[in-house]
Amino acid sequence: MYSKNNAALRPPMGWNSYDYYNTMVSEEDVKRNADFMAEHLRIYGWEYIVVDIQWADPAAGSLCPQVQYVPFTRLCTDEYSRQIPDPARFPSSAGGKGFAPLAEYCHKKGLKFGIHIMRGIPRQCCHDHSRIYGSDATADQIANPFSVCKWNGDMYGVDYTKKGAAEYYDSVFNLYAQWGVDFVKVDDICNTNFYKENPYSAEKEIEMIAAAIEKCGRPMVLSLSPGPAVIEKAWHMEKYANMWRITDDFWDDWRLLKNMFERCEVWQKHVGSGNWPDCDMIPMGDLGYGWNKTARKSNFTSDEELTMLTLWSIFRSPLILGTELPSLNKESLSRLQNEEVLALNASSHGACQVMRSESQAVWASQGDGCPARGTDVFVALFNLSEEDSEVSVNLREIPFINESGTYKVRDLWNRKDMFPVEGNTELSISLNKHGAALLKLSGK
Amino acid sequence: MYSKNNAALRPPMGWNSYDYYNTMVSEEDVKRNADFMAEHLRIYGWEYIVVDIQWADPAAGSLCPQVQYVPFTRLCTDEYSRQIPDPARFPSSAGGKGFAPLAEYCHKKGLKFGIHIMRGIPRQCCHDHSRIYGSDATADQIANPFSVCKWNGDMYGVDYTKKGAAEYYDSVFNLYAQWGVDFVKVDDICNTNFYKENPYSAEKEIEMIAAAIEKCGRPMVLSLSPGPAVIEKAWHMEKYANMWRITDDFWDDWRLLKNMFERCEVWQKHVGSGNWPDCDMIPMGDLGYGWNKTARKSNFTSDEELTMLTLWSIFRSPLILGTELPSLNKESLSRLQNEEVLALNASSHGACQVMRSESQAVWASQGDGCPARGTDVFVALFNLSEEDSEVSVNLREIPFINESGTYKVRDLWNRKDMFPVEGNTELSISLNKHGAALLKLSGK
Amino acid sequence: MYSKNNAALRPPMGWNSYDYYNTMVSEEDVKRNADFMAEHLRIYGWEYIVVDIQWADPAAGSLCPQVQYVPFTRLCTDEYSRQIPDPARFPSSAGGKGFAPLAEYCHKKGLKFGIHIMRGIPRQCCHDHSRIYGSDATADQIANPFSVCKWNGDMYGVDYTKKGAAEYYDSVFNLYAQWGVDFVKVDDICNTNFYKENPYSAEKEIEMIAAAIEKCGRPMVLSLSPGPAVIEKAWHMEKYANMWRITDDFWDDWRLLKNMFERCEVWQKHVGSGNWPDCDMIPMGDLGYGWNKTARKSNFTSDEELTMLTLWSIFRSPLILGTELPSLNKESLSRLQNEEVLALNASSHGACQVMRSESQAVWASQGDGCPARGTDVFVALFNLSEEDSEVSVNLREIPFINESGTYKVRDLWNRKDMFPVEGNTELSISLNKHGAALLKLSGK
Amino acid sequence: MYSKNNAALRPPMGWNSYDYYNTMVSEEDVKRNADFMAEHLRIYGWEYIVVDIQWADPAAGSLCPQVQYVPFTRLCTDEYSRQIPDPARFPSSAGGKGFAPLAEYCHKKGLKFGIHIMRGIPRQCCHDHSRIYGSDATADQIANPFSVCKWNGDMYGVDYTKKGAAEYYDSVFNLYAQWGVDFVKVDDICNTNFYKENPYSAEKEIEMIAAAIEKCGRPMVLSLSPGPAVIEKAWHMEKYANMWRITDDFWDDWRLLKNMFERCEVWQKHVGSGNWPDCDMIPMGDLGYGWNKTARKSNFTSDEELTMLTLWSIFRSPLILGTELPSLNKESLSRLQNEEVLALNASSHGACQVMRSESQAVWASQGDGCPARGTDVFVALFNLSEEDSEVSVNLREIPFINESGTYKVRDLWNRKDMFPVEGNTELSISLNKHGAALLKLSGK
Repeated sequence: MYSKNNAALRPPMGWNSYDYYNTMVSEEDVKRNADFMAEHLRIYGWEYIVVDIQWADPAAGSLCPQVQYVPFTRLCTDEYSRQIPDPARFPSSAGGKGFAPLAEYCHKKGLKFGIHIMRGIPRQCCHDHSRIYGSDATADQIANPFSVCKWNGDMYGVDYTKKGAAEYYDSVFNLYAQWGVDFVKVDDICNTNFYKENPYSAEKEIEMIAAAIEKCGRPMVLSLSPGPAVIEKAWHMEKYANMWRITDDFWDDWRLLKNMFERCEVWQKHVGSGNWPDCDMIPMGDLGYGWNKTARKSNFTSDEELTMLTLWSIFRSPLILGTELPSLNKESLSRLQNEEVLALNASSHGACQVMRSESQAVWASQGDGCPARGTDVFVALFNLSEEDSEVSVNLREIPFINESGTYKVRDLWNRKDMFPVEGNTELSISLNKHGAALLKLSGK
Repeated sequence: MYSKNNAALRPPMGWNSYDYYNTMVSEEDVKRNADFMAEHLRIYGWEYIVVDIQWADPAAGSLCPQVQYVPFTRLCTDEYSRQIPDPARFPSSAGGKGFAPLAEYCHKKGLKFGIHIMRGIPRQCCHDHSRIYGSDATADQIANPFSVCKWNGDMYGVDYTKKGAAEYYDSVFNLYAQWGVDFVKVDDICNTNFYKENPYSAEKEIEMIAAAIEKCGRPMVLSLSPGPAVIEKAWHMEKYANMWRITDDFWDDWRLLKNMFERCEVWQKHVGSGNWPDCDMIPMGDLGYGWNKTARKSNFTSDEELTMLTLWSIFRSPLILGTELPSLNKESLSRLQNEEVLALNASSHGACQVMRSESQAVWASQGDGCPARGTDVFVALFNLSEEDSEVSVNLREIPFINESGTYKVRDLWNRKDMFPVEGNTELSISLNKHGAALLKLSGK
Repeated sequence: MYSKNNAALRPPMGWNSYDYYNTMVSEEDVKRNADFMAEHLRIYGWEYIVVDIQWADPAAGSLCPQVQYVPFTRLCTDEYSRQIPDPARFPSSAGGKGFAPLAEYCHKKGLKFGIHIMRGIPRQCCHDHSRIYGSDATADQIANPFSVCKWNGDMYGVDYTKKGAAEYYDSVFNLYAQWGVDFVKVDDICNTNFYKENPYSAEKEIEMIAAAIEKCGRPMVLSLSPGPAVIEKAWHMEKYANMWRITDDFWDDWRLLKNMFERCEVWQKHVGSGNWPDCDMIPMGDLGYGWNKTARKSNFTSDEELTMLTLWSIFRSPLILGTELPSLNKESLSRLQNEEVLALNASSHGACQVMRSESQAVWASQGDGCPARGTDVFVALFNLSEEDSEVSVNLREIPFINESGTYKVRDLWNRKDMFPVEGNTELSISLNKHGAALLKLSGK
Repeated sequence: MYSKNNAALRPPMGWNSYDYYNTMVSEEDVKRNADFMAEHLRIYGWEYIVVDIQWADPAAGSLCPQVQYVPFTRLCTDEYSRQIPDPARFPSSAGGKGFAPLAEYCHKKGLKFGIHIMRGIPRQCCHDHSRIYGSDATADQIANPFSVCKWNGDMYGVDYTKKGAAEYYDSVFNLYAQWGVDFVKVDDICNTNFYKENPYSAEKEIEMIAAAIEKCGRPMVLSLSPGPAVIEKAWHMEKYANMWRITDDFWDDWRLLKNMFERCEVWQKHVGSGNWPDCDMIPMGDLGYGWNKTARKSNFTSDEELTMLTLWSIFRSPLILGTELPSLNKESLSRLQNEEVLALNASSHGACQVMRSESQAVWASQGDGCPARGTDVFVALFNLSEEDSEVSVNLREIPFINESGTYKVRDLWNRKDMFPVEGNTELSISLNKHGAALLKLSGK
């Protein structure tokens, strides 16, 4: 039987153009990052190449850095009210080929291809009364003139009660399937923040999109943005989507990173095959080039980067890199190539917060070991304080630990074995300010 | 010196098409009501003929009664992004004459002419990048794609920080001045209810409109809708507008009428020359034809109608009739011709609530009598309870009464003199359920 | 190692005095219900006898039915600011014995004994500057004069930052341990509804209480009220408590019962050993005697009762009967004795909502069968509509079903075997309005 | 006829102990300030001496500066649940004389005497079931256990529906009348900020207090705190009280002073005989001694002090000095002795904001001159910007100005005549950053 979960049996890993290119990524840029991924990261599991927002907008970025999205821009669309790539930035799309050539480029390198879209239908098509593929309805007849996004003026929401509404979304995803799209990040849909009293107001559009993906015949990861996702609606997201943002936009700011611990606390019970609460893109290396043609380095220290990668990994967030991949320094790159850590993200289970205070946090999860010899236990320790300090946890507080057992301890980031420990003792480790350690405990 | 107050030295009195015709009034309908007003009401002070919403929309009403406003309709506009009347419904407007012929029709009968507009600029013009008169800017450059109305999808708000924004509003009001417009009801501007945390978000558009009226050279009453107006912003409204709605839409429902007493309590200190807190249109006689081509009678009883007219009169609300004028019955019409009551609306002052409980209310105000002999005092008594009952007030509680004086009492609605009263006694009167009395006390 | 989970490895089952006796239950009443439980229900797993609110208040109920809680009543307390039972209603408590004799009465019958308390310390003790056991601090020094309950005026919250605060809670639970208390329902602590912006404001009091229970040496179920519990704080509740209310007070009203489906949807991932999101007491049979000395029958129909018991059972809510047990009719009683259903509540796992609409809901869970032959799958079907109708589900949508398998079907409420079904077919059943069915599917 | 307005025909002027003494003022302190007022300020109209909060609390200030109000302190009360002065701090009150001797001290010096009280009845009396004078009810029977203050734990609100409630307030004000109290500042009553959804929740207590004052036979100014007062309830305050706080506590902080311009804008229509929207105490000279036995100087610059005094004066706020009077420097004192400015506060009318922007504000009002020769016009100009600058206004924008007239201009603060101006010209003046000018324009 069809299950949307099959499109994301483990947390998706990949790259997204937004943190570096903002609205201005080009085909050449995408290929450069795809090349890098294929060469340096693919064998570790990194595979998605995702083109983020405004790929259909010829004016994208023209008002940066004052204005991010050009008001009343004229998006490239086909005759059926569907956006198509701007051929100036995506030359291979010319002649009606859409993203098919770029997707094929990725596929040939063993990668997968994804795109960003805004919920809804282009406003311009509604005012033009444009056609809908597979329906007699026109765009104005299926759009809701009061369903708008708070921060991007391109689209109107689609009213599911209208004839032609489902046909529109079906036609859009059919087009994407023809292009070879493997991943769709749908925006203004997870938290429709214009509508404070109903931030999950796009519920029915999620259902239409999920149905369209099922019908299109091509597996696609369905990723919902922006956050924070509404926890009361978790069941609905789990039924229809593969990943959803658990915070508002995440950037290289320690306060946001510290706050992510609280968000992961809230969402920890909702992680599982096909369902990946999403900590958002990982801002490493160079960032922000698309704002004004000048890149900056991530503000995260090496310790903060480690904390970020450790939390994302043990929580099993999707791992989507927000950077210009070739800009990564050697240390950062080697962290992304640590197969022992990535294995934890890919296949551990039961991840839970053991404790969290203002100054430290501890998480644990369980490996997929052979039941006969007992499974591995992963323990992540975080120093959330403003000073270097000792972080400790009594192993008895960790659900998966056998109090009377003895464990070998391995430091996964440093790839080295440490002292053995008893299951009923205090585990303590010195951590830099904002730093983290990720340990594997294996029963002897 | 120019003062916007001169356009409305006393509360405007007139007729508005909305309560009867909804979005569908035609030139013929307007003329029929103008004829009636000229013949039966003009000499009592009634003078404004106001064409309400959607006069530029050829599709207006086509989805009634299911949908009031046609989404993504194509409004009639000129080359400068300004709405013009739909020539099918307003044949005299053909050939670029706009409302000039209809305004002239009214003027010739000694009446004044008004129109309704939505705040902003037509969405369609923004997506079409249409021109602005007197500016190089185009519509897309002055509109705010996130400033929308909650209930009508025609317009975008205009961003006052943009070059061309003031020019747009100037051009619009210049056109109206050319047409001969005397009254403009601007909607989605007094309480921009889409924006719950900032219901006075259109503050700067009010200022642009006020400036445009001043510049256009023709006096125009500026009326702001919808309500409830935000009392904290009273000073701003008093500086820029002539009237503003103090409640949400008022209809023929006793609960709304009873609630108006609370609203008048709140706004009583803000009534004065050029500044008229507005209780909204008076729904009498036939109503609601424009929804589905079937009129209904107002739900108000004769007593409730009297309560409404009494409160509006003593509070000095604008008096704008919402009805098909020829449908008025004899009693209703004669009430609108009661010059003793209308004088109170036109020229009393100091109106204040004396008391209000769940079951009764008393208001008082002072006439414009000769100071030498003492001025008249008006007292309105209301039975808000669900039973016929006695309503009373001790005259000493009324600010304008001389405790040691003696007063002649006249019943203004019934046009007859009553018993004399002493200034320190209880005045008591039997009133039907939901009924009212309006008395004039004159010092002997 | 100590774990609070051990006090409630499966959902607690028992009886609570509130729904029938309100604030007025007496020792005799408690014994009567304990006797009934011991005789008719104990062997099916029912064991807790819980004395609800106001057992320390000699004036309890004296203002009913106008006022539920007597303002500024003088609670019975010991010299250490701790409440003790009113000896007039609980004669065996006289002479400082507290609830020990009544607890022993229950224990001798193989039952367990519980009590209700309000969060905090008696207001009267604070104003009297009463002593705290084990501390030099006095009541006024540990109480927060601004931490009050919205609906009961007996207590002030305890400020955890104050010396003596933890000692107070320790002394209270030590006393309860001496009495032999097995279950404590703490009120005004799960949703402190006076504080709308911080409904989990008693977080630190929960921690003090959990610590006091651990220290007292006697296992006690910690039950938090009232609801709705704040889902964002689930981790904290799971760390410190055993059960917490997921709705406001539940009564015999279909709208509340229908709403519980939504609440169970929200909380389904948080059910597990030691952690029992609580659907509140089960109002069956006679109710409401304590309001004004007159009982009434539950408003639930037989079908609604079945729906309630089915949802509570498959969701694995605690099962706490709110009724006068001897008043139960034969049908109701037999339902409480259905060991096949109760086994599902006690030991199934993975319960999840399969679907929910306005008209029907389906839940499923998995039994604890032998892995070798495949485990049983439980399916609950609910008719939420206002008419008798067919409720159906495609078995492929149920997570635990093997699509290619064949299943024996047993109707648990009616204790009879039905037709076999294939794992990939539609299962359909006729249900009365508001009715339910609970089926066990066993692989053949 | 009795009118509460007679107690405050002009804005009250006086001194209040709070800003300097916090909760710790003593009889000696009060006398010292009364002496100073009698000698230096009385002839200018300053007359009220007001003892602020906690005069009945023997422990007042004992936890300062950590805690302002001692939780569960034991207030001094008489046998009828009424607070009486702490005899340690107010020795003359011993022997049941209350504040009578201190009031007499003031009266003998030609001053008036006032006190602060919290709304309600002492919590301790409710828990003690204390008696109420003139009623069989006891304190517990009239208090509302859920009506509490957000920041002071002394009192419970009084439930007006209860027998004995009105008698309690009557007895309290009878006692004050016996003492010779002329002014009562009632706290936690104007904005009951614990109740965010109903900040005017003490409406009925205001009515009981107003009735008690009327019944007690002694005129008393009724002052309501804290603010911000709810503008929607202005009518009610005007009916029952004499002054009410239009902001939260005002202190010597420019941001608060700048914000007062907005508050005065909102309340300007509600100023009139007996009704004085209150800008709060004037923090000048030494402040804050009562926190920790160390005074500090006001943070206001000389210019800011002038701005404050100018705004309070033209708006006609009550003028209540918050300071240790003998600490005033020569300049400040001379400002308080400027009879030309004080006359404006005492008897001008029609004060209104002419304009306000981020950088400047202009107010105007009209004097009480002889109508035959035209009345004086007062104009206040304020530099709200962060730089010295020119502040200007076109005189035609000022309501009371005759455009074709010529005016003599007098600078009231500097007591000197300036240039004459025409009524249709721009008036411009150089002002220091945060400074002000107050001008009188007299028709020639």
